[in-house]
Amino acid sequence: MEKEFKVTPWEVSGEIDYDKLIKEFGITKIDNKLLERIKKYAGEPHFMLKRGVFFAHRDLNWLLDEYEKGKKFFLYTGRGPSGPIHLGHIGTWIFTKWLQDKFGVELWFQFTDDEKFLFKEKSYEEIQKWTYENMLDVIALGFDSKKTKFLVDTKNINLMYPEALKIAKKINFSTVKAAFGFTNENNIGEIFYTSMQAVPAILPSVIKKENIPCLIPLAVDQDPHFRVARDVYPKLGFYKPAIIHGIFLPPLAGTTGKMGSSDGEETAIYTTDTPEQVEKKIKKYAFSGGQPTTEEHRKKGGNPDIDVSYQYLRMFFEPDDKKLAKIHDDYKSGKLLTGELKGILIEKVNSFLKEHQKKRELAKKQIDKYLIKN
Amino acid sequence: MEKEFKVTPWEVSGEIDYDKLIKEFGITKIDNKLLERIKKYAGEPHFMLKRGVFFAHRDLNWLLDEYEKGKKFFLYTGRGPSGPIHLGHIGTWIFTKWLQDKFGVELWFQFTDDEKFLFKEKSYEEIQKWTYENMLDVIALGFDSKKTKFLVDTKNINLMYPEALKIAKKINFSTVKAAFGFTNENNIGEIFYTSMQAVPAILPSVIKKENIPCLIPLAVDQDPHFRVARDVYPKLGFYKPAIIHGIFLPPLAGTTGKMGSSDGEETAIYTTDTPEQVEKKIKKYAFSGGQPTTEEHRKKGGNPDIDVSYQYLRMFFEPDDKKLAKIHDDYKSGKLLTGELKGILIEKVNSFLKEHQKKRELAKKQIDKYLIKN
Repeated sequence: MEKEFKVTPWEVSGEIDYDKLIKEFGITKIDNKLLERIKKYAGEPHFMLKRGVFFAHRDLNWLLDEYEKGKKFFLYTGRGPSGPIHLGHIGTWIFTKWLQDKFGVELWFQFTDDEKFLFKEKSYEEIQKWTYENMLDVIALGFDSKKTKFLVDTKNINLMYPEALKIAKKINFSTVKAAFGFTNENNIGEIFYTSMQAVPAILPSVIKKENIPCLIPLAVDQDPHFRVARDVYPKLGFYKPAIIHGIFLPPLAGTTGKMGSSDGEETAIYTTDTPEQVEKKIKKYAFSGGQPTTEEHRKKGGNPDIDVSYQYLRMFFEPDDKKLAKIHDDYKSGKLLTGELKGILIEKVNSFLKEHQKKRELAKKQIDKYLIKN
Repeated sequence: MEKEFKVTPWEVSGEIDYDKLIKEFGITKIDNKLLERIKKYAGEPHFMLKRGVFFAHRDLNWLLDEYEKGKKFFLYTGRGPSGPIHLGHIGTWIFTKWLQDKFGVELWFQFTDDEKFLFKEKSYEEIQKWTYENMLDVIALGFDSKKTKFLVDTKNINLMYPEALKIAKKINFSTVKAAFGFTNENNIGEIFYTSMQAVPAILPSVIKKENIPCLIPLAVDQDPHFRVARDVYPKLGFYKPAIIHGIFLPPLAGTTGKMGSSDGEETAIYTTDTPEQVEKKIKKYAFSGGQPTTEEHRKKGGNPDIDVSYQYLRMFFEPDDKKLAKIHDDYKSGKLLTGELKGILIEKVNSFLKEHQKKRELAKKQIDKYLIKN
């Protein structure tokens, strides 16, 4: 029996079958040939590419064709600021920074504060607070302020609204109903919103008055926005953006859905967690692929494929392929115990967060350099 | 058999039964008692009030109660800039100026360029051109620039968008479907739009951080926007605005629908028309309540109630009640011929337009004084 899963920009649940998603969304798996092409321009592909953490794409070959012809692209990604940042958010941005550094291109980073206000039972003021807090985390990752622009929907609306109108005029309710599962009970802001998320893919082209290719790294749940918008861009005289799709970091406690900040401490590690909190969360909640007893584990070995600690190392915290392979094999053979595996992850996470939190403090004085002046 | 008519913000057609509209819209007829109250504060009521050109209201007694307590209101009206201004537009603004002068209050004048772009098959650039052109006509009417602010949706969106989001969050698709007759084929900008039209009724309160009563003079087809929004304002902590509703100036050629600029030269007199154009249009197209021959007219008399020239004099161009009564009686008795009646109107319109066009030229240098700086 097939397991049910759901992937929309506002709900991810169930055990996600990414191959099925590729078919449903009409996107293309990243294959070795494409990895080789990327290698040509960017050197050794990022481990997230090699390991299938970024697994699918739209029009990436076209983007590289243009790049080959000397036409630089820009990157666009974003964040819906409705709560604290957890590790599940950061993977996409680390990968985005790698793309920026390797290709030497601009990044437009959108904070969709309008979206989060419209879709969440939170006040306008709370969303503004999270917008500020979330910016600190993005800056802490080290994006080059000379090449990175923060687009805050409610703050840069004067730049965005005219373009959003042009997009909105070409999308009707039937289309968003089909793409997002909206009903007549959705509020009229939610219905309009997708046109705001579509804007950054063309805004630099509008501002610079030339058609610039765009590459959007995103978690795959955001793809429906662009499935809708990609039909519209050419009608306005712009390229369809290329997209590169990431899988979800699983929640601590299990392998279904995605790490989320709305579901309590057992699902997510926040960037502001203390070393003690991290240790406690991983020890207490991280779903284990190990055996019930040490004896049994030594004998039968663990299952890294379902072990959340191993998956975090694979997806995020152990870039070194050889070290990861050793952990994998040792865990599978029973040589490495669950407690030891968790210990490796705890150390990696805390070492990352120590540095991140330091940079996050410094970021408070750097925000201005990233904001777009109207 | 009842005649069919339709009144929505985007379509007015058929022979409008205003009494029926009052019931359908749930608005209140302006009676003598209310006229007496207005007289108390504003002196002799404007002829458009006395003659029922402004015929209905919402919460006007409440507004006057507040005014009596010393709480000043502000006025809000607007224009959808999709084409040239004709006489049908100007009546509401002349009446609005009278209110502003008599009560000494601020006017916020909205130019809904976003609406017109979304609802019309016109380019963004064309709508921008009409926004500029239409501003000249509003300024030419003599609004005090110290007390009058132009709010242009796409230009002042940074002020408006946060409030539009708060309103939009409380209106769902079912509601706009019912109020405006929308279908799944409406574009998602059209669906969102009503929240933008709702904003000016609270924006001065937001900016000044105090709850200020609002009075909206409008043509009755715009009422549905506020029927929807009035349920929302109190949820955001603001007063429901009072509204005063005007009837439509009939098109030149007939007594159904309203004067419109989309339907060819026979329906509308534009503010930029030459004296010759005005003369030709009225002579050729103005629907007559007279008899086919002079002899018959002398004998049977004309019908001023259906005569468009007489109606224009009543609704707009002959403020003097005695003079109007004489025209009415002379036309009815057959003493005044249709050609003579048209002659009176032609002279009035051309005298008005001569002055208007002079001021419209001067307005080109005054726009800046009316625009809201972001």
